[in-house]
Amino acid sequence: MNRTEEIEKRISKKDKRWLTKFFSRSHPADIATVLDRADDSDKTWLFSLLGKEQAPDVLAEVEEETARRILEELDAKRLSGIIAELESDEAADIIGGLPPAKREEVLQRASPQQRTELRQLLRYGEETAGGIMATEYVAVSDEVTADEAIEQIRAQADEVEEIYNVYVLDKNGRLVGHLPLKKLFLCEGNTKVSKIMDPEMVKITTDMDQEEVANIFSKYDFVAVPVVDRRGQLVGRITVDDVLDVMEEEFTEDIYKMAGSDGEELLRSSPFRVARIRLPWLIICLFGGMISASVISFFSGTLQQVIALVAFIPVIMAMGGNIGIQSSTITVRGIATGRIDLSHRRRLLLREIGIGALMGIACGTIVGLLAALSYAEYTLALVVGTAMFSAITVSATIGVLMPLIFRYLKIDPAVAAGPFITTINDIVGLGIYFLLATLMLGWLTS
Amino acid sequence: MNRTEEIEKRISKKDKRWLTKFFSRSHPADIATVLDRADDSDKTWLFSLLGKEQAPDVLAEVEEETARRILEELDAKRLSGIIAELESDEAADIIGGLPPAKREEVLQRASPQQRTELRQLLRYGEETAGGIMATEYVAVSDEVTADEAIEQIRAQADEVEEIYNVYVLDKNGRLVGHLPLKKLFLCEGNTKVSKIMDPEMVKITTDMDQEEVANIFSKYDFVAVPVVDRRGQLVGRITVDDVLDVMEEEFTEDIYKMAGSDGEELLRSSPFRVARIRLPWLIICLFGGMISASVISFFSGTLQQVIALVAFIPVIMAMGGNIGIQSSTITVRGIATGRIDLSHRRRLLLREIGIGALMGIACGTIVGLLAALSYAEYTLALVVGTAMFSAITVSATIGVLMPLIFRYLKIDPAVAAGPFITTINDIVGLGIYFLLATLMLGWLTS
Repeated sequence: MNRTEEIEKRISKKDKRWLTKFFSRSHPADIATVLDRADDSDKTWLFSLLGKEQAPDVLAEVEEETARRILEELDAKRLSGIIAELESDEAADIIGGLPPAKREEVLQRASPQQRTELRQLLRYGEETAGGIMATEYVAVSDEVTADEAIEQIRAQADEVEEIYNVYVLDKNGRLVGHLPLKKLFLCEGNTKVSKIMDPEMVKITTDMDQEEVANIFSKYDFVAVPVVDRRGQLVGRITVDDVLDVMEEEFTEDIYKMAGSDGEELLRSSPFRVARIRLPWLIICLFGGMISASVISFFSGTLQQVIALVAFIPVIMAMGGNIGIQSSTITVRGIATGRIDLSHRRRLLLREIGIGALMGIACGTIVGLLAALSYAEYTLALVVGTAMFSAITVSATIGVLMPLIFRYLKIDPAVAAGPFITTINDIVGLGIYFLLATLMLGWLTS
Repeated sequence: MNRTEEIEKRISKKDKRWLTKFFSRSHPADIATVLDRADDSDKTWLFSLLGKEQAPDVLAEVEEETARRILEELDAKRLSGIIAELESDEAADIIGGLPPAKREEVLQRASPQQRTELRQLLRYGEETAGGIMATEYVAVSDEVTADEAIEQIRAQADEVEEIYNVYVLDKNGRLVGHLPLKKLFLCEGNTKVSKIMDPEMVKITTDMDQEEVANIFSKYDFVAVPVVDRRGQLVGRITVDDVLDVMEEEFTEDIYKMAGSDGEELLRSSPFRVARIRLPWLIICLFGGMISASVISFFSGTLQQVIALVAFIPVIMAMGGNIGIQSSTITVRGIATGRIDLSHRRRLLLREIGIGALMGIACGTIVGLLAALSYAEYTLALVVGTAMFSAITVSATIGVLMPLIFRYLKIDPAVAAGPFITTINDIVGLGIYFLLATLMLGWLTS
């Protein structure tokens, strides 16, 4: 019996003693995983077994769905106790998920200072720098000495989980630089802070999108970045552990959207709920598919003439779909990582059309030859080959064009990839195929 | 004219003065982006404009393709100078990409200590903890006092870019704990290190896969994690900035593989090279598609009876494809993030079959009704509806099953998603469709 099975057995037996002991020796992140994987009905009970020290950290680590369950059954008093122990960003995330009445109750129980901070944090958009930053940071005045700075840092050290950077503020609270710990650690005690601070630093404003924040961290290898308001006053900091979460979240969001689905919760909830999330997209595609069907009906005169044409429908559709997915994936990902330079849209489009044409020639020739060999009908072979070439080239083009158009319309480009592009490609691909067939075969047989 | 265009104009004019000045005021990561986006023929020249201080950092930041270009034209002497300035992990990455003769020449020019370290790093697999770790870290003995520890740290501080953790070693070099900077900062000078150190810590072994390393960082919110060899001796550390790169890399790899393509280089190289990378997959799918074609040919007796059947081929194929992409995406991503518990394979499979069946009932009913309305042929409607239901359920199942089977065979599950699954789904979906048609219609019309 492995670890996971052991834990499950103990949960099903409601073995309180064993579980309490097991939790007390485990990392909050590991306990969170146990809660996430447990049946919905067990989550609240399991959470109640946690000690006062662990409960806040575990609540901050569990997935949204699990947190919602637990929060439903916690009263405002216990909840306030937990909130008080958390870093401001985590506290704000949890409070933000509460129903308004309960949220107010919890806020009323918080200390005045924490209440103000939390209200402020709740005002920022969830996916902006303001929404992911914490208000805990260590800052010193630009007018003191290194020794005085150390005193100021000591006084603040307890509040902050990790000191990565010490920020330097002028008398108006504006961020003017940062003080590398290493330098502070190695310099003489009476050196002025303004002498050893580094005035060059990247700042983020509260309204920056979290994906852009993540790109900045990964590009410049930061561990923490200060966040300022419009007046340049320091209001918080974002640390790299939050950015790791953002990256995971954004990746997962992208890839789910590309599959025509949505968000995190998929892995946990019931088949009925999941089906309800995914169905809308499928229904749209279903109607798209019906348009393809009517394309075929429209050309049924051609079809009755040469039944062999039908045999090549799937391969032309599939290849168009594949190319479309390739070029759209590369475009969506390139936009998300900032690796695609949007001022070069035209070059990008031409390049992808070029790639599409090359692959179209290769695949068109192969399928044409196979058609010629199988049916010994050379006009058919020509139609099939040309249709394949056109379908591939057009699909490659649509695959780049759609994400760019979506971005222009301020819709997430990831939505464009996946089922949406596949459906458009099917319709266009079949249209080209039967048009060519009608023109070439119709003209030849009439 | 925006910034990017201004830079491009200066490059095309070979405006050495302007560019040198611009580079000297820019962050290495920004210079790297300029080099990545420049034409291949300009990269080496642009690199030569960089100062001695910037060149190493920029070389460490550019994409693989750009680095290869630049390294080709740098002689071993200049290269050794650059290598000496880099952190060991970056130096090893660059040396690892050199042809063997040049690699030896550069290694010979390095200091004996650096040479040994680099040779050791080059022995680890590129995608393991050993392959991404750096050998620079700060460590103190477990037998000294806080004041002596500070002395030891001072002596090492210059070598290391950022001190995140101070590791504590026993007399055999085995890692026994770490010393939080904050504690060292706040305690009395004569406190023993063994008293204030934290013995609880996560260690990584050199052979751990980099994807697992990334999951550990994101789960436990680490900034740096020590790496030990089999005997527990400290050999290096991995920092979170490397992990951000790993996450981007792994995610991009996954998503490209799912699209039936490969790796980073896609965005930069010529259409011919890109087409050559993507074609193999497409050709495989092309032959898969031809199997679909022969499925249709095989049932052509049925087809000639009811031409209307043909009209529904695209929609059944497309829907099977969509469901397959949905369930495979969710499975691949779940495996990569560790969120899918592999000891629950059966539950996962049953759940996805359940979701598939629900969506199959919904879509099968809709398409059946539409068929009944369009053609007023109720047997046809029944065939189309049932085929849609079966295709969707089977595709959902294949979408989960394939990544799991691939994982079992130790092939990257991401390869299973994308074109591969789509092709299998096409063949199975069409087979079911025509089998049903032959059985039901054939039986009714005969």
